[in-house]
Amino acid sequence: MLSASNCNANATEGHLNRGGADACRRSAATKKSPWWKTQLFGGMINDIRRRAPFYWSDWADAWDYRVIPATVYMYFANILPALAFSLDMFAKTDQSFGVNEVLLSSVLASVVFSLAAAQPLVIVGVTGPITVFNYTVYDIITPRGTNYFAFMCWIGLWSLIFHWILAITNSCNGLRYVTRFSCDIFGFYVAFIYLQKGIQVLTRQWDASDASAYLSIMIALLVTAVAYICGIVGQSSLLQRQVRKFIEDYGTPLTVVFFTGFVHVGKMAGIELLKLPTSKAFFPTTDRGWFIHFWDINVGDVFLAIPFAVLLTILFWFDHNVSSLIAQGTEFPLRKPAGFHWDIFLLGCTTGVAGLLGIPFPNGLIPQAPFHTTSLCVTRTVSGSDGEANKGHTRRVVDHVVEQRVSNLAQGLLTLGTMTGPLLIVLHLIPQAVLAGLFFVMGIQALEANGITLKLLFLARDKHLTPKSDPLMRIERRWAIWAFVGLELVGFGATFAITQTIAAIGFPVFILLYIPMRTWLMPRFFTADELGILDAPTASPFTMESVGGNHGQVAEPLGAADATGLDDSDEAERGERRGSRGDEGVKNAGGPTRRRSSFRTPQGLELDNIEKS
Amino acid sequence: MLSASNCNANATEGHLNRGGADACRRSAATKKSPWWKTQLFGGMINDIRRRAPFYWSDWADAWDYRVIPATVYMYFANILPALAFSLDMFAKTDQSFGVNEVLLSSVLASVVFSLAAAQPLVIVGVTGPITVFNYTVYDIITPRGTNYFAFMCWIGLWSLIFHWILAITNSCNGLRYVTRFSCDIFGFYVAFIYLQKGIQVLTRQWDASDASAYLSIMIALLVTAVAYICGIVGQSSLLQRQVRKFIEDYGTPLTVVFFTGFVHVGKMAGIELLKLPTSKAFFPTTDRGWFIHFWDINVGDVFLAIPFAVLLTILFWFDHNVSSLIAQGTEFPLRKPAGFHWDIFLLGCTTGVAGLLGIPFPNGLIPQAPFHTTSLCVTRTVSGSDGEANKGHTRRVVDHVVEQRVSNLAQGLLTLGTMTGPLLIVLHLIPQAVLAGLFFVMGIQALEANGITLKLLFLARDKHLTPKSDPLMRIERRWAIWAFVGLELVGFGATFAITQTIAAIGFPVFILLYIPMRTWLMPRFFTADELGILDAPTASPFTMESVGGNHGQVAEPLGAADATGLDDSDEAERGERRGSRGDEGVKNAGGPTRRRSSFRTPQGLELDNIEKS
Repeated sequence: MLSASNCNANATEGHLNRGGADACRRSAATKKSPWWKTQLFGGMINDIRRRAPFYWSDWADAWDYRVIPATVYMYFANILPALAFSLDMFAKTDQSFGVNEVLLSSVLASVVFSLAAAQPLVIVGVTGPITVFNYTVYDIITPRGTNYFAFMCWIGLWSLIFHWILAITNSCNGLRYVTRFSCDIFGFYVAFIYLQKGIQVLTRQWDASDASAYLSIMIALLVTAVAYICGIVGQSSLLQRQVRKFIEDYGTPLTVVFFTGFVHVGKMAGIELLKLPTSKAFFPTTDRGWFIHFWDINVGDVFLAIPFAVLLTILFWFDHNVSSLIAQGTEFPLRKPAGFHWDIFLLGCTTGVAGLLGIPFPNGLIPQAPFHTTSLCVTRTVSGSDGEANKGHTRRVVDHVVEQRVSNLAQGLLTLGTMTGPLLIVLHLIPQAVLAGLFFVMGIQALEANGITLKLLFLARDKHLTPKSDPLMRIERRWAIWAFVGLELVGFGATFAITQTIAAIGFPVFILLYIPMRTWLMPRFFTADELGILDAPTASPFTMESVGGNHGQVAEPLGAADATGLDDSDEAERGERRGSRGDEGVKNAGGPTRRRSSFRTPQGLELDNIEKS
Repeated sequence: MLSASNCNANATEGHLNRGGADACRRSAATKKSPWWKTQLFGGMINDIRRRAPFYWSDWADAWDYRVIPATVYMYFANILPALAFSLDMFAKTDQSFGVNEVLLSSVLASVVFSLAAAQPLVIVGVTGPITVFNYTVYDIITPRGTNYFAFMCWIGLWSLIFHWILAITNSCNGLRYVTRFSCDIFGFYVAFIYLQKGIQVLTRQWDASDASAYLSIMIALLVTAVAYICGIVGQSSLLQRQVRKFIEDYGTPLTVVFFTGFVHVGKMAGIELLKLPTSKAFFPTTDRGWFIHFWDINVGDVFLAIPFAVLLTILFWFDHNVSSLIAQGTEFPLRKPAGFHWDIFLLGCTTGVAGLLGIPFPNGLIPQAPFHTTSLCVTRTVSGSDGEANKGHTRRVVDHVVEQRVSNLAQGLLTLGTMTGPLLIVLHLIPQAVLAGLFFVMGIQALEANGITLKLLFLARDKHLTPKSDPLMRIERRWAIWAFVGLELVGFGATFAITQTIAAIGFPVFILLYIPMRTWLMPRFFTADELGILDAPTASPFTMESVGGNHGQVAEPLGAADATGLDDSDEAERGERRGSRGDEGVKNAGGPTRRRSSFRTPQGLELDNIEKS
């Protein structure tokens, strides 16, 4: 039902010489044997078999400068939101979860996944949705007199079982139906959660005083502006390459450090600002041991935990896999195989352990996971050499990704170091307002990269001024684009609305329902060509090999994508980008490498050019 | 000593069919008879003779929609800074000047210049420098026991005489030596005065309370961001053309209105914010009549006013003429002749009258005057049609300017209406913080358009990523660019520093000294080619006809600028623009039409294309 040209287009994306045609053929083959007939454990075994040969290279390849900024950036991009979420849970679960629990959860996840995962690029930690999950369960359970930690522990243990079942039955093969459509909705949702949490942090500042509330808003706005401008400078042609990259890599952390000091300058020193609440090093926030007494609970409550565990498993299956998909999206020229089944098995383990320790359950982080891959990209800025068309223009192309396990492990160990006494005191210096600003920046940058935003911008654009080469222009029925974006927005709106209610924990179900709708319902109203342009597989056939290839892809001879066609789309991508940030365009930063568009076009040609030069 | 190609390049700038060659020839002829031998009154008579035939068309041509947004925009862009300056003077001259004085000054200037000026596009009002002048004189004079208003009146009367002398002796012929070099320094200075005044307004908010100070900063930041984004949207390809233009035209005023209401929402309503101080309608702020008793002063003080009047005259001669030059810069395809001599004569009249009424002296406004011309530009967005190079790109070209007197008069009458009781009450609602935000936006937009900024960006840019077609790349000695920009920055720095001291009133002398330095000293250290690229005449030969053409221009046959050359620079201009806002560039908004670059390149070709299509 999908356009046959999908496979073709994907096959040319960065993997010209590797696996493309194979994957297509395999995918076509997979169609004949549905996933429920697949051998149990087959997915996991395959994942290990394919990834194991690369294990030692994952450590050897880490000898690369990119690992350092990636580690530092990930440390801050992981820990700062985690801290802010801990703040949220701290307030809403009556101090059951604090900074130490969240940090330990991040450390646990990072150590396990960096050492053992098939997809070590995927950053795992405490997310916004799990925060919502935790305090919603708290609201539901504690009025019944149930021991919250024991109940959470049982949720974790049941989830462990469910995760293992999902891993053993090769459920991740269903990922072939998860296209940009679902990923974009979820990414949009997560971005708005960030913005909302930022605002909530700010509203809490009135507890101190009016002056500190407005000072906090001012600080948050300044942090947003400065960190955002750092991102723009990093993507610009200003300054020497090293300086520019430094600003891009360390701009956000340095902004946090700067404004943490800034609030002590001049008259601001006199205003009390709320800081991050921290507690004793290495100890749980509440007066308890690290090991949960999960037997201190009614037998009835043990089974009451099952529906919650089901919801958690749905959330994690979706959230973790989508994180993995986006972190290994088509725009990253990865050379090492993925392994979705094995990682879900691992996720079950960490969920169970987290339950036993009474810490928040970690899972794949959006947008941190894709930001991690982005920060590991070795890019080259090439001056346009294809004649007049690019005279004076330059563009960045991703040469390769430094695929290794060290940056993930190192950021986890840094987080562990943060749990020591002295560093907890440093953390305690950070005003909550700075975290709010950080939330805004992350939310905005995630929104900019989202396919829904890009389609909305296309629809808002003056028709007369839209480049004819824009792929969306090839869709004749303009209402089809409206309908597609409308469905995405309804999905986002419903998910976001549910999150605000006591039914919040039910939101994963809603998102999950969108996958069959996309697969079986939407092709009845949209033509295959339209869906081919509006939607696309998130990851390349090479990555999807782990789950049996992408849905609807048919094998076609390689090289059928003629050069003209590629050139055209390539031009479109650049035209789009220039158009939206150039003289006639709305600002749309975050830059090419952070952008994941639903109608991303082949980059194979560019890469070839580079590899030859 | 200047490059001969200057004239050539200018002749092609928008006036291909009109006057270009004439002006060049005339300029060459003028060289033989220096200005001091020119007949007295000659300049003024010429101005009237050349402009009078267009007088009625100045009213008839106003039947154009552009006049409406230009009027509204100018009303706000003129009155809001004027109010903020009044706030400044109110505080620093012990309430001698208030809102009513400043409004009356704007009304007086607008009525006189819209009805009688040879250059009705030039918006005249109360500027930052005159604010500095007023309170510096206050600081110097009042300790001596001198009647401030009587003294200011004498300054005005002496200045009237000096202005008339300057007009009669055709002094404006000296404008041929005023290039972008001086204009950029002055524009840079004015932009920083805006930013500084914005900060000063904010620091004053601590008088109310800590909370209102931080709320004010928050509001100012939001006003800056929103108004800036409105500007970006206006220049983008988003939304329908009408909606887009509406946002561009009315975005800033609506932002002011919105945030004036916004501060009454929720918890902000409880915070006291300082508002604009207003007084009784139509009456002077202090208890006095409108007519100054200028005889209530020592004879000695009458003559003491002379040196001050000289400084004022220097300031006004320079400031007003530079405003006129920039408002009639090469980027605007004007069709009606300019008249600098006559306008200086008129400026003498308004200065004298303002002195007699005890109101601040009005003169040409930067950046409002060029913004006025910009807002009267009828632009067309054309999709790039010259082959692959512009595939999918669009650009705006100025088709023509609605040259008339109505928008200038109408914004003056609106200001008069503002002096009535009810509207004064409305004005009193505007928080000072909103004005601070407005100052920031105007300062930033003025900076972005400044030639110094553009050269600094060029120098900061990665050499490997600078388009080869950038005109500045043709300069072999890179230190020459550094030296040129360095001289500009020293000029700016010195002027700005003087303004902070009691010697502030002396700053016009300093700026004036830069003109001979540019004309006679700099050609010894820079080659003619370098100066030709780094600097350029501000206005076109057609505009400069009033003052005998541009310095150093030699007649050359038209059409000598070969098409390739034009294409090249055209590409450069776009490359530069895209480069700085595109995917690899720093954000640099304000857009093409607001941009006045020192190395602006010919637009004649583009316009021709349009006129043919």
